Amino acid sequence: MAVYTDVSDAELAPFLEAFELGRALTFKGIAEGVENSNFFLRTERGSFILTLYEKRVREEDLPFFLGLLEHLSAKGMQCPLPVRARDGNAWRMLAGRPAALMTFLSGLSPKRPDVQQCGELGAALARLHLAGADYKLARPNALSVAGWKPLVKSCEAKANGVHMGLSTLIVTEMRWLEQHWPAGLPAGVIHADLFPDNVFFMEGKLSGLIDFYFACNDAYAYDVAVCLNAWCFEGDGAFNITKGRALLSTYRSVRPLSSAE
Amino acid sequence: MAVYTDVSDAELAPFLEAFELGRALTFKGIAEGVENSNFFLRTERGSFILTLYEKRVREEDLPFFLGLLEHLSAKGMQCPLPVRARDGNAWRMLAGRPAALMTFLSGLSPKRPDVQQCGELGAALARLHLAGADYKLARPNALSVAGWKPLVKSCEAKANGVHMGLSTLIVTEMRWLEQHWPAGLPAGVIHADLFPDNVFFMEGKLSGLIDFYFACNDAYAYDVAVCLNAWCFEGDGAFNITKGRALLSTYRSVRPLSSAE
Repeated sequence: MAVYTDVSDAELAPFLEAFELGRALTFKGIAEGVENSNFFLRTERGSFILTLYEKRVREEDLPFFLGLLEHLSAKGMQCPLPVRARDGNAWRMLAGRPAALMTFLSGLSPKRPDVQQCGELGAALARLHLAGADYKLARPNALSVAGWKPLVKSCEAKANGVHMGLSTLIVTEMRWLEQHWPAGLPAGVIHADLFPDNVFFMEGKLSGLIDFYFACNDAYAYDVAVCLNAWCFEGDGAFNITKGRALLSTYRSVRPLSSAE
Repeated sequence: MAVYTDVSDAELAPFLEAFELGRALTFKGIAEGVENSNFFLRTERGSFILTLYEKRVREEDLPFFLGLLEHLSAKGMQCPLPVRARDGNAWRMLAGRPAALMTFLSGLSPKRPDVQQCGELGAALARLHLAGADYKLARPNALSVAGWKPLVKSCEAKANGVHMGLSTLIVTEMRWLEQHWPAGLPAGVIHADLFPDNVFFMEGKLSGLIDFYFACNDAYAYDVAVCLNAWCFEGDGAFNITKGRALLSTYRSVRPLSSAE
């Protein structure tokens, strides 16, 4: 939740000259985004988000991410649209990092989503799955079973220091997941990180989805599961079945679930 | 350089209802400001900065700070203007902190100010001193000789760990300053923290001064000295006399310096 790489006014000016956006009127680092450095930029042509990609986003994945945003925007999804520079490129180097300019989305992220917002989310998630179905590029999910194994290995030794018995629990669960992880579910492009802070609302209506830097190809059910977990549990850990039903029913009204799902 | 206190959408809505600014369209924490939590807020009526005052700003000092901004704005200074709520108050509680809404200033802070910018700054600093001369409230400077003594005490023991001999240097310097600190210099309201990150420029012209939360009554020369130190030294520690002359000559063209100064 910070700006990892600072951009000086002297670096910003030549960067901006590569675009047709006029001069910078405002430039402020934003205290959000865990992976990258983000800045609010207002120019003579409008408001934008400037993202500097830090270590966890690989430059070779940028064509997938930025192309996906263009693909989804063209299909009417409310997501940031990369602004291409005069040379046609969707990103260029700035302060030693790959950097992209995106259109700015209005709206506020909910801290505690209500039932109506869960319903809005479900429909948007299903529309996202349908809109991404014919996207040409592909990217494996780095945070599925294979990716969790090294994470388990790195946590195993310290886990009992957090809570006695946690280490065994993690290792046992990992083994169970490896044996039971479902195969053959309907799959395609998923967001994979659709927590409430990545969704904007205006007057209860969903106004934007952001932060597609975990997007990948995997089972649609993975996305649905992330959303049920991130949107439908209360502060005390209880599952709110009303929220869960709202999310699933609007999802299914847009994209029916198969019996396996 | 962070947001210390988070504000949820559920807390923001009733806070905003106390103002005549319409609904929130955008709300983002800003990664700047060392003392307070700052948010960029766009509503149906425009763009604003929301500041939550953290521990180092005392609520009893807010009338001085916010009244000063109103006083300076009325005199044509380019500084944030507090937006008063429907009840006439310039601040109210939000997320357990006193909070104020300010008008938004355009411009970019320079990382390495050039000669022209130093000249712009000098004139603005002198205008600030003249504009504040008839401000009715007063606040002592917490960061002058008396305030440095406890700071020296808290650093003394650890200073040699940073650099051998530093402790003696600090204590000796403190004693010298106590004996030689000038008295009777022309004084009034000063900014006291006018580093480049608190000054905005547009096309080389100064477009705004921000962050008045060290403002106080003290010698004008204190402000001039802060600016010479913060604006006119190069990365290698050398004093750039061209920048220093530009700053001082424009300052003196607006407010002549006395011989003692």
